[in-house]
Parts: sequence; C-alpha cells; structure tokens
Amino acid sequence: MTSASSKPPALGPLLSTIHSPADVKQLADDELPDLAAEIRHTLIDCLSKTGGHLGPNLGVVELSVALHRVFSTPRDKFVFDVSHQGYVHKLLTGRADRIDTIRTYKGLNGFLLRSESEHDSYGAGHAGTALSAALGMAAARDLAGGDNHIVAVAGDAAFTCGPTLEALNNIAETTKKFIVVLNDNEWSIDKNVGAIASYFNALQTHSTYASVRRQAADFVEKVAGKAARTLAHRVEEGAKNLLFQNVLFEKFGMRYFGPIDGHDLPLLIRTFEHLKTLNEPVVLHIITEKGRGYQPALDNPGKFHGLGTYKIEDGSTDATTTPTCSDLFGRTVTDMAKKDPKIVAITAAMPGGTKLEIFKKELPDRYFDVGIAEEHAALFACGLATEGFRPFLAIYSTFMQRAYDMIVHDMALQGLPVRLCMDRGGLSGDDGPTHHGLFDIGYLRHIPGIIHMQPKDEDEFVDMLHTMAVYDAGPSAIRYPRGIIKGTPIKSSPQILEIGKAEVIADGTDVALFGLGTLFEMAERTKVQLEARGLSVALINPRFIKPLDSNIIQTYAAKCKVVCTFEDHVLFNGFGASVIENLHDAGIHTPVERIGWPDQFVEHGKPETLRELHGLTAENATAKVLRHFSI
Amino acid sequence: MTSASSKPPALGPLLSTIHSPADVKQLADDELPDLAAEIRHTLIDCLSKTGGHLGPNLGVVELSVALHRVFSTPRDKFVFDVSHQGYVHKLLTGRADRIDTIRTYKGLNGFLLRSESEHDSYGAGHAGTALSAALGMAAARDLAGGDNHIVAVAGDAAFTCGPTLEALNNIAETTKKFIVVLNDNEWSIDKNVGAIASYFNALQTHSTYASVRRQAADFVEKVAGKAARTLAHRVEEGAKNLLFQNVLFEKFGMRYFGPIDGHDLPLLIRTFEHLKTLNEPVVLHIITEKGRGYQPALDNPGKFHGLGTYKIEDGSTDATTTPTCSDLFGRTVTDMAKKDPKIVAITAAMPGGTKLEIFKKELPDRYFDVGIAEEHAALFACGLATEGFRPFLAIYSTFMQRAYDMIVHDMALQGLPVRLCMDRGGLSGDDGPTHHGLFDIGYLRHIPGIIHMQPKDEDEFVDMLHTMAVYDAGPSAIRYPRGIIKGTPIKSSPQILEIGKAEVIADGTDVALFGLGTLFEMAERTKVQLEARGLSVALINPRFIKPLDSNIIQTYAAKCKVVCTFEDHVLFNGFGASVIENLHDAGIHTPVERIGWPDQFVEHGKPETLRELHGLTAENATAKVLRHFSI
Repeated sequence: MTSASSKPPALGPLLSTIHSPADVKQLADDELPDLAAEIRHTLIDCLSKTGGHLGPNLGVVELSVALHRVFSTPRDKFVFDVSHQGYVHKLLTGRADRIDTIRTYKGLNGFLLRSESEHDSYGAGHAGTALSAALGMAAARDLAGGDNHIVAVAGDAAFTCGPTLEALNNIAETTKKFIVVLNDNEWSIDKNVGAIASYFNALQTHSTYASVRRQAADFVEKVAGKAARTLAHRVEEGAKNLLFQNVLFEKFGMRYFGPIDGHDLPLLIRTFEHLKTLNEPVVLHIITEKGRGYQPALDNPGKFHGLGTYKIEDGSTDATTTPTCSDLFGRTVTDMAKKDPKIVAITAAMPGGTKLEIFKKELPDRYFDVGIAEEHAALFACGLATEGFRPFLAIYSTFMQRAYDMIVHDMALQGLPVRLCMDRGGLSGDDGPTHHGLFDIGYLRHIPGIIHMQPKDEDEFVDMLHTMAVYDAGPSAIRYPRGIIKGTPIKSSPQILEIGKAEVIADGTDVALFGLGTLFEMAERTKVQLEARGLSVALINPRFIKPLDSNIIQTYAAKCKVVCTFEDHVLFNGFGASVIENLHDAGIHTPVERIGWPDQFVEHGKPETLRELHGLTAENATAKVLRHFSI
Repeated sequence: MTSASSKPPALGPLLSTIHSPADVKQLADDELPDLAAEIRHTLIDCLSKTGGHLGPNLGVVELSVALHRVFSTPRDKFVFDVSHQGYVHKLLTGRADRIDTIRTYKGLNGFLLRSESEHDSYGAGHAGTALSAALGMAAARDLAGGDNHIVAVAGDAAFTCGPTLEALNNIAETTKKFIVVLNDNEWSIDKNVGAIASYFNALQTHSTYASVRRQAADFVEKVAGKAARTLAHRVEEGAKNLLFQNVLFEKFGMRYFGPIDGHDLPLLIRTFEHLKTLNEPVVLHIITEKGRGYQPALDNPGKFHGLGTYKIEDGSTDATTTPTCSDLFGRTVTDMAKKDPKIVAITAAMPGGTKLEIFKKELPDRYFDVGIAEEHAALFACGLATEGFRPFLAIYSTFMQRAYDMIVHDMALQGLPVRLCMDRGGLSGDDGPTHHGLFDIGYLRHIPGIIHMQPKDEDEFVDMLHTMAVYDAGPSAIRYPRGIIKGTPIKSSPQILEIGKAEVIADGTDVALFGLGTLFEMAERTKVQLEARGLSVALINPRFIKPLDSNIIQTYAAKCKVVCTFEDHVLFNGFGASVIENLHDAGIHTPVERIGWPDQFVEHGKPETLRELHGLTAENATAKVLRHFSI
C-alpha cells in the first residue's frame, strides 16, 4: 500500500555513515561541506519522486548540521516551527534510509512527529508554536534542575503570528537559558507583509543608518573573520535587519546576535558553541536562501516551498489542465468582486495556496494579506463587515481553528456576514493529520446563526460562492477539498441557492443516500451498486450542513427503510450525527448508516489509500445498507 | 422578571441633560469637571446595586467625555477593547436613564453591543480584539473614500494578547488615519507579567535613561503646560513607558504620543483635537487610575475591577462562607501539587478569577501567569507536558476557545496530558453571551483522544481533579460552573474515578434521567416529580462526556421507555446529542428528551430567569417525559 520503492535510497558515502547525531560529531571538519552536498543531493533526488517542502529544507542544511554538531539530541531539544524544514534533521537522526518514503502511507511524515523519533522533541504543522512549546520545555528543565539546551528554530514569517509574539513577551521572565534561531529567508519574496517591511523602507533615510551599517559589518567581521566576505553582497540588507531585530528583541529582554550567513558552517558552529555558554535568552538571526543549491528552486522559491513531483533536470512539473477548487475560488471571487465593489478578500499569508493571488493581481486595493495571523484576519474581516463590506476570508479548514473564538464571539454573536472559505475541507492526504480538515463541521455546527455548506461538484461550488456573496444576514462558511471534486464544467450563469435547501437528485423508496460534498460521488456509486441488487435508491445532495433541510431529510427517512450519509469529516459531531439528531427529534427511527472518518487522528497517505483503510468506500456503504435487507 | 427598579435612576443636573453625544458638545468647558463628577457618582451608586466593572469605568470618565467632545459617533467609531469600560460611553449616548438596569435581564448589557445602540460600533467581551476590528473599519473607510475617524481604546493588558500584536503588524501598511488609545492603568498592580516589566527594571541602569526621562518631562511640559504638574509624581514611571512604547510602536510604523495624564480633561481634548488632524496612524498613551474618585476602589483595584453588589460607604461586600468551585479548584490543585512535584499551574492573567492565586502564593515556582495569551498558555503547557510535568491550565470555558487549535494540533494529536480546567463552564449569568461557557462540549467532543468530564457536586469535583492529576495518557478537560454547584462538603480522602464510567444513583424501569454536572440537581427534582406520578425513575450521573459510558447508557435506555438528558450547554453537538448518536448506533430507539440551551445566543440575566425562559426546568423536563406516558 505504500508508493515508496522497497529499494533503500542511494545515499552518499558520508550520509550513509550517519545513523545518529553522534555520527555527525565523528566527522572531520573538512568533511562537513561534503556531507551538506550529499544531503542536498538526496533531498533533490528523493523529493522529485515524493514531492515535499524542498526549498525550506535546502535552506537549512548547514543550520541542521551545525545544530547536531554542537548540541546532542534527544537530551538537548530542537523545536522547529511548522517543522516542514525538518527533513535534514530526519536525515541526521537515523532516518536517512527511509527518506524516500517521506509523505507516503506508512512512510516518514512530512513534519516532525514525537512518535516517529526520540529526536523529534515536538511535532508541528501549523506556524508559530515553536517558541511557546520550547519555552515550556525550558521551564520544565529549570524546575527539574537540568542543564540541557532548548533551541527553537523559527522562520521570519512566524513572527507575524500571535502565539510567537505572546511567547516573546514571556521568555525573559521564564528562563535564562534559551536559544531562538530566527531563520530569515523571506525578506526578498513578495509575500512579506506588515510593519517590518515598511520599517525597512523608512530606515533608508534614517540618520543612524550609516553607523548601524558599519556596526553590523564590524560585528560580522569580528565573529566571522574572513568568512564575512561571503556576506558582502548582503550586508546592507543585514544591517537593516540588525537594527530592527536588535531593538525588537531587546525590548523583549533577549540578547540579539546576527545577522550571520546561515550557510557558513564553521561560523554557525562557532556561534552555537558560544551561545551555549551564555546564561541569558538569546536570538541568533541567520540569513539563508530558500532552495540553496538547486537553481530551479532559487529561481522560483514560491513554487518550490512545497510541491509535488518534478523533473530534476529543470524542476518542471506536470501541468494540470483541470482547474482545482482553489483555482475556481480565486477566479470566481475576483470576477464577482469586479461587479460588486463591496467584496473584499483576505488571506493569512496564503495567496498561492488559496489562489487569492488572482484577486491580488486584478483588484489589489481590495486584497489584504495580513500574514500568518488568522485571529487578526477574522477580526479585520469583522471590522470590514460592520461597514457594509462583504469579506471573503480564505483560510484552510485546519488553520481556521485559530480563528475559532472570533467566529463565535465576533462574527456569529454580532451577526456579521463574513464569508469563511475553507479550502482543504476534508482529508488533505500526504500532509497528514496537521493538515486534514476533518473537524470543521464539529467546531461550527453548534454556533448559532452560522450557515455552512459543501458543494458536490465544481459547478455547484461556483453557485455557492455566488450565494455567499449575497447572503448578508450573518456569517457563512463553505468547505471544499484540496484539488478537484469532479472536474465538472461551470455553467455560464450561476444560480443563487436557497439557504437550507437540499437537492433531490433521484427519488427512491428503499434507501436514501445523502452524499455530502466530496463524497457525493461515492454516494452515486453506492446507488449503482444497490440498484444492481434490486433496491430503489433515492440520492440527495444535502448542500447545507447548517441549516439542515429537515423537510427533505425527514421525508426521505420516513419513506425509506435505511438512510446512509457520506461525509469527508469525522463522524462525531459530523453531518451524519446531525441527521440522526434531526430524525430522532422528529420521532423517525429509520436506521442511519454513516460513512466518514473514525474518532482518531488520520495518518498521512494518498486519499484513496486512507479511504480504503477506514471504510470510506462505496463497497462498505453498500454492505452497511444491505445488512438491513434480506437480499 | 427584571431585578432593576422601575423608577429611573437619579442623575445629576448635567448628566440628566445628556441624551446624545451632541449634548456633550453643548456644555461649557467649565461644566465638564462637574459632568465627570456626576458620572462617577452615578456609577458608584448604580453599580452598588447591580454589580459590574466599577474600577475600569471610574478610570475612563475623562477619556470618554473627551472622546465624545472631540469626535462624533456614530459617524466616527470608537472600538473599546473588552468593552467592560464602556459604561461611561453608555451614559453619554442616550442610555443614562437605564444605567440602573445594567447586567440585569432585559436591561443594558455589561459590554457594548451593536444591537443596543448605533453608538456601539463594535461589541466585545474577550480581550485583544479592538485594534484588529478597528483596522477593518479603517480599511472600509479608506475604500469608501470616507474621512471619519476610527479610535481603538485598549488597556495595557491587551498588549500581551496575540491578536493585538498581529494587528499592530498590519496597521501602518493598511491606513494612514487611525488612532489607538493605550489606556495604561495596570503597571502598579501585581498581575503585570512579561518582558515589559522586566524591561523597566533593566532600564533603571540604562545609560540613556536620564536623558529619556528629561525628554519625557519636556514632552509633557510642552503639550500640557501647567497641567504637567499633576503628573509630577508619576513622571519617572511615565518616562519608562515613553521609552519602551515609543520604540515598540515606532517599530510598528506608528507615531507615539504620551504619556499624558488620562484624567486631565482639557489636555485630553486638546490632544485629540491635534491627533484628528494627522495623516498617519498614531498611539496616544494615557495614564489612568482604576477606581479614580472612589477610595475603596483605589485601595483594592483587583476586587473593584469587576464585582457584585457592595456598600457605598466602605465598599464592603457580603462575605460568602460556602467555597465556590473556583475556590475549591485553587485549593485542591495547590494541595495536590504539594505532594506531586510534577504538577504545575498556568493561568492567562486570571489568578483571581480562577483562584490560582492560592497556588501562586504557596508554590510560586510552579505557577505561571503568561498574560492574556491563551494560545501561548496552551502551547507552554504542552512544552511542560513533553518533559513529564503535569500542567493544569485554568482558563474559562469561553476563553478556552482561543486555544482551540492548540487543543487539537498540539495536545490531542501528540497525546500530551495537559489538564484543561474550564471554569464558567455553563451559563455565566449577568455577563451575558460573551461569557457563557455553552459551547465546550461542542468544540471538544470530536477531538480524538480527549477526556471530558463534569461533576455533579463539589465533592465529585475534587475527585475529578485528583483523577485528572494521575491521568497521563493524553489531554483531559473538566467543565465546572461559576459559583457553587450544590455546596456539598468534601470527603477526607479523594477517590480516583474510573475513566468513562458513569454513576448510577438510582435504579428504575420507566424513565432514565441523565443529569450532567450542574443540572444533576434538576434531574433529581425531575425524579421526584415523576415518581409523584407513579413512574419508576432511574437517575444517572454521567460524569464523563467523553468517553461516554455506552454500557450504562444503553442498558438504561433499553430497559426504560424514555430517556431524558440534562446539560448546561447548547443542545447541538451537546451531551444529549451524543447520547442520541450512541443509542442510534446501538439500534436502541428509546426516545431521548433533552434539556439544554437552544441554538441561539443566550442573553444576560440571572441563571434562574434564563433557565425558566428557555425551558431548563424540572417542570419542563417532567412535562416532556410525561408526554410519552398515558397517565
């Protein structure tokens, strides 16, 4: 069931000797550059077949080697923010022989996992958690009287994130022994947002800038000696970072070091050796290149942040011609906004993933990228809604969890019509449990006054977006999957749907199938299988999770002998559970079979593999329904 | 049904002429101090009978008058963070004649509400939302080409809050016309936490301190003239704030003004008049006194932040002798921690409300107050748990919504045994919908691997806390109400409960009552009423919401004709819903009647009033059950 080959990956002569971090320490200094080269070769090779976060990992090769050279996991703890940059760490901690299984079923996870290795002190997948979690470890170490080191590694984008900033406010008074590595690799790409970028512009004319620039150069020269030359072309940028970060981190009671070249291994090692002797919380600011060592990734850092399979020679990927739901979302919201000046679009640092990049390009004035800041994004949308605007807030289902309090307290309670557009609603596949969107019915259905829907195909998806656009009575939410639902063409004139009205696709008297969204197609196949057994099968497209179409549900449950619901969501607090509740309260006791995910975290792998494994198949639905008939 | 008197409150001669903000502008300058005095008199008088947030409102009398003197709502927008300091604003916007109804059923809400007045541009109740929401309004104003003013008012504590910091990062690039008032009133009380406080200490020895101090004095002198004298005794503190805030806000691209005396009305008015002419985002830092003008509140700012009724003469309140659940929680966790060195306690700025102040006093090393930073608090607890500590995270049910993503992504997915202690689980009463804890079963039940429980009385509450202490297999949660459940005495030796096991209190064959937590007592009364009608009634204390005791539930549902569930939670995704789902899947079709809150936001008022209104009574339960019997 795994897509990985059974032959172990070809590792270079040095990397094949690394079975644990102790082996990294055994190498001679002059072997380390070769190790780094081998790591890059392995990453570029393996990920061309599995896909994954290539760019970020190519950027942290030297950092990861230096960390394992100086510190000793599992005694010392590394906490990688998001942890998609943890592949190099995996290669150095006994998992090199399985790196070709990454992101495949039963293979290595694409993020760090405590259950995968004792060297993974903390798992992640969502941004901005590293500093807080690491600080908890530091507090634990201090209480236990230990002397091990805690190192949190976070990208610059994590510093737009509420939890990171909350953690910063707590570090100095919690511990004296704490290392934060600010891995700064994104100043140069356009998704940088917020005050930091503006500040750098303002700084150009600042009177103290020249002297700061000299200081930065001096600092680098002093720490790095001749190695500083390699930074020559970046020193201006570095100086700007120095001043900003210096002041900011000092305000938070931390000592600041940097910026230094994050690809200069001897410098990194010397710096970490020094930092581990200090008795105060420190920040080390390193400058790295996403995609370092692979020209296609350097040329296109956005694409190579995370991607599927590619050709090693030129980094080309298969062009797909069928638009994904994300494509359709970006296109449709932009087109609607061209006709309706009240429509605005908001993303939390995901213009590419959500495809709001289309909106950004065509209607930049009404496009807002607030950074990885889902709480602020939701509140900002509320503010816009109070003034009569129609905000479309595009955040993946799993990341929308960050805005949960705002959905309750700000949107629903005040009846503000923010449109929650939840891409990756349902199983996300290769990325695994941190990215599956399997809980959003559960966390939304009990919120009074919210509308929640899911389309059965692309054409209906566009209808639903148009329906949301004109629904101003309160918050509305839509969940739609990664990739393609059915690939249906879009009709020329969208239809505004009636709120809370299901669609009866086929009438029937024995079985009523309610196929929600992505799994509608599975219900269709179940219908065929049941009809082959001589049953009369009704097929309903629920469209609305809330409000439920009580009339249709009760009518069909009353006239059929069995109901079966299909949902790409956990069963607890899910769509099928709400059908059961609805029928029970109406005194209708028709049995309801449910197809959906079990009460456990679902692993990573191909959706087909995982659906098969957990019984989300037409065959299983057919078998469950047939148990109620003596045929 | 309202507890307020029908006689309008006695207002002073000036306040009684204020029917809208326009009337504030009609007063002569020299009448304003008298207006402020009348407002204070009215607040002290009315709140002595209704309870409420006296201290914060006494602190913003001059600020609120100045805002309404200079700006014009509803055209201009004031967004008050948390909005518990909005009473003065209510007095100035046509609601003075109803101020004596505040926090009573059908009376004024204790927070701002968009539905209550056109002058309330944004409602709140949770901290840290003002800057983001106001920024959304500013973006809307800019898109619409308007020129009205947006003023966000936030206390210093809001600046430990993720959403506030996320918003700060977005202000400068979003708008050029935006005023933030930093209402600084808490530097002097002990709940100040984080880097800011440490920074001030460090600053004492800073070489530039003296000159900054002079600058601050000069600044104040220049803006305030002779009024600066009133600040003389606070100038040192002010200078410290100046430096810190100045640097911090400048980093975020905002122009900083202050600190100024927030009780100097002419200075406030002159400053706002100046700020409204500027074309850049600004922060005005004002220093105010919580409880200003009422000695008991000045003497005890913690108590008078928010309280029930009190005697005006001396501020004394009725002493209650029965310990509340919060008292028991603080006492029990502290006692357990004295025996178990792995127990640690974490609060998000609520040592008083959660009663962790007991832990703080007796075990300060293992006590962590992280500020209003629920996301960080949850992650920090996770970090401690990875190292074998047993964290008790005490956050009200409604505020735990902020940590929702971390409960899923960090605790449950990693199986980290953080103990979620959710005070105010269930109806909160006078505080209203922003503070009711009516959703936590809904947002937790579908999370794999979490334990969730609720005690029927105080003794069981203590047992449950002991059970959580030794449960290390994953996260566990407990919901318990504000105040007292039944006031039961605590047995001398606590009992460790079996996970997922309900308690059968009485056997019966006609009706099975499942009384969860706070409403167990209502189930007891229902039993009496049903038995009076000749029915045999089983009474079960479910104890666990997750995992459900399927065995007990199915056994009693199978042998009785009707089941009735009781829960202090909304019915959707609630305890009763899970009972229905469980029985349905077991093929047991016994009807389940449910007592709980409807699918709407529940207003403020006394719990008894609201329960009666929404059918949460033993009488209603009895009637629902009796419908199934022909007696």
